[in-house]
Amino acid sequence: MLVVPLIERKRDGAALTSEEWSALVAAYTDGRVPDYQMSALLMAVLLRGLERQELAALTDAMLASGQRLSFDGWPTPRVDKHSTGGVGDKVSLVLAPLVAACGVAVPMMSGRGLGHTGGTLDKLEAVPGFRTNLSLAEAKAQVLKLGCAMIGQTAEIAPADRRIYALRDVTGTVEAIPLIAASIMSKKLAEGLSALVIDVKRGSGAFLPRLEQSLELAQAMIALGEDRGCPTGALVTAMDRPLGRACGNALETEEAILALRGEGPDDLMEVTYALGAEMLLAAGVEQTSQKARQRLETALASGLAAEKFEQVIEAQGGNPRVVDDPSVLPQAREVEVYRAPRTGVVTQVEPRTIGRAIVAMGGGRLTVEDAVDPTVGFVIAVKPGDKLLAGEPIASVFAKDPGGIKTGFETLGRAIVIGDRLVQQPLPLISHRVTKHGVEELVRGTARDERDA
Amino acid sequence: MLVVPLIERKRDGAALTSEEWSALVAAYTDGRVPDYQMSALLMAVLLRGLERQELAALTDAMLASGQRLSFDGWPTPRVDKHSTGGVGDKVSLVLAPLVAACGVAVPMMSGRGLGHTGGTLDKLEAVPGFRTNLSLAEAKAQVLKLGCAMIGQTAEIAPADRRIYALRDVTGTVEAIPLIAASIMSKKLAEGLSALVIDVKRGSGAFLPRLEQSLELAQAMIALGEDRGCPTGALVTAMDRPLGRACGNALETEEAILALRGEGPDDLMEVTYALGAEMLLAAGVEQTSQKARQRLETALASGLAAEKFEQVIEAQGGNPRVVDDPSVLPQAREVEVYRAPRTGVVTQVEPRTIGRAIVAMGGGRLTVEDAVDPTVGFVIAVKPGDKLLAGEPIASVFAKDPGGIKTGFETLGRAIVIGDRLVQQPLPLISHRVTKHGVEELVRGTARDERDA
Repeated sequence: MLVVPLIERKRDGAALTSEEWSALVAAYTDGRVPDYQMSALLMAVLLRGLERQELAALTDAMLASGQRLSFDGWPTPRVDKHSTGGVGDKVSLVLAPLVAACGVAVPMMSGRGLGHTGGTLDKLEAVPGFRTNLSLAEAKAQVLKLGCAMIGQTAEIAPADRRIYALRDVTGTVEAIPLIAASIMSKKLAEGLSALVIDVKRGSGAFLPRLEQSLELAQAMIALGEDRGCPTGALVTAMDRPLGRACGNALETEEAILALRGEGPDDLMEVTYALGAEMLLAAGVEQTSQKARQRLETALASGLAAEKFEQVIEAQGGNPRVVDDPSVLPQAREVEVYRAPRTGVVTQVEPRTIGRAIVAMGGGRLTVEDAVDPTVGFVIAVKPGDKLLAGEPIASVFAKDPGGIKTGFETLGRAIVIGDRLVQQPLPLISHRVTKHGVEELVRGTARDERDA
Repeated sequence: MLVVPLIERKRDGAALTSEEWSALVAAYTDGRVPDYQMSALLMAVLLRGLERQELAALTDAMLASGQRLSFDGWPTPRVDKHSTGGVGDKVSLVLAPLVAACGVAVPMMSGRGLGHTGGTLDKLEAVPGFRTNLSLAEAKAQVLKLGCAMIGQTAEIAPADRRIYALRDVTGTVEAIPLIAASIMSKKLAEGLSALVIDVKRGSGAFLPRLEQSLELAQAMIALGEDRGCPTGALVTAMDRPLGRACGNALETEEAILALRGEGPDDLMEVTYALGAEMLLAAGVEQTSQKARQRLETALASGLAAEKFEQVIEAQGGNPRVVDDPSVLPQAREVEVYRAPRTGVVTQVEPRTIGRAIVAMGGGRLTVEDAVDPTVGFVIAVKPGDKLLAGEPIASVFAKDPGGIKTGFETLGRAIVIGDRLVQQPLPLISHRVTKHGVEELVRGTARDERDA
């Protein structure tokens, strides 16, 4: 296959045909196109963009490189949620069992943490025994039985995406909106979904901080999903501060369990209910947001959602007692309380700083091979806008040794900025709803909604 | 070495520091940076450009990766000529011995043909026995003795350039003006020159067809040369038709020999004298273009230039009799005359079509490993503007078999366009002179100058 003319055309701003994308992805996946040609092409894509037709062809080619789940003939609607990633984002752990408890199946496929963001798989694996590496056949059987499975990207799904993603990670080509959209959608479209809801993060802790980028990404994924028979919608949510209080794998799993028991922090619940309502609407089991939300709240209050999580954990080899007693989660060796260094107003809780510190403390990974210590992290009780008195306890640091505590304290000193007044309003927690019809700015979800009572 | 942040910065349009370029080139050359990262960076450079400081640092790093010729203490000035490449461009074979015969040393390092363009080394090697692979030490000794050596890029010179060029060739990153400039100058600056003259081709047969690109490339190389103590100038010459009549390795060598004997076609002589005059001026052995040209014409008419070529051929293992008797060159097995298919005016002789046909007929290479048949090619007696009668012989095809003759005829049918009148004026043969002071448009060198008498 002659790759150089394709690279040259994309470099010069032209579009490749669907057949060319298809042949290229197939040749790259089976090793006939070398990495150095693919990386040059990916850089050209990043700087020149992809036309809608090209994005569709690339996504289809990556999807076609692997297998797909099929639920043909099964009447239960299947809906998944995808988040573009952030710090403290444990929504999936609450949402999947909650939506499944409302009669909508959730065949959820998630990723690992990378860079400053956490990953759902790492959080689930904090539960002793929990297996995320189910085969597609195992996952399907579990979805048919329990209405929910929470797994990783298996070797069977979109191997082309896995190879291309690994190359992007080491060639400065991660931040390309069409490549991000194609990567996500090639996996999601393999899940055999009836619909998909995307949580697009924006703000300093998101991979794509700016709103225009978030909207562009959401619209690219919606176009891809809609064109392929998978109705897709998105909410844009705030990642200029961590979501919830806990940051770090086991700590976040514990917070998710508390949330399923009705004790979750307001911002986490608000985002979870909003995404859950979109999922129930997309599945067609409710017709209005209000009714969908009521159904979710009932499933949570009744204990059905927590029970569903217990069943999923048990089915996947984990210790189901964790739902009643989160202390079965691994515990950090060192814990220390962090106190406000001065009186004032919290002006910032910088998520990227927090996320990077967790990696430095052993709780995240810089390369995909790194092992993760699930116990380390932070619980941060304050949000931008909160008033503090000097000496007031505002966070806890969880570490494996005194060096980690030191790193944690230094991190909090930088990440939690305290001033005389709030200089910049935090981003609204849920600011936009994006559908195939366009972008709707939301009035609900102001910064106040997320504040703990 | 952390390469991804460097790729990301260049991708986002920022400049890398000189230290970063230096470390990067060193790490790539010794294999610590993989091809796939370098190719992504090269694509980012192609699309984002390099600042002057970066271009200098990249060139210096490639230069520093190898050895340099040194003529310290030797009073004779050394000047070389570089051409950006074209079809029928045998100027170097005439110019090097001619300028050396005028008392200016020419340590000439040339390349092989690649793609549609020919290369000086392939033309020289058409002479039976001629060795172009001298070591630097051998080349230096020959320059000190004869004032001229004509060699290839040895393994000792700019190995980083060789690796990077090979990667660019297969990743769609050849056409980047700063990368072209850095590649050329990293080799030329290793020759221990007093000055350098560049022949920048423009027109449909040039690597960079547009005038703005030619001028940008010339100015980039001039800045690099001047900043490094090697005064550099350039002429922009026409490559919208082949230069001279012969196209193909042995045929061009024969034409160069005829030129040294005073029988060269006008356009070839015009370009050779113009570049030669620039070289003598740059060397400081003449003060005006007119005197420089007279000196060149005298050296040629006296036979000194042809004698110098004979000495160089003999010193490098070739059969020196070729200068008196070009029939010692290998001869094509099949030769046929091509006649004008209709009465009219030649509106175009398309060099790229001719160059590609020579490759197809076995006389050029698509990859650096390809062997070359020196005998094949064309002698084309007409230029744009010439009036023809149907049936008039206007070219000869030289091939290794009847299939090659057929290819050659088809090629000439497409390449030599005959119409009722000249629609577009050919480019002026020598249109611009570029120095550190700027660009000067020349009035001499109109299209008429190149027409055979």
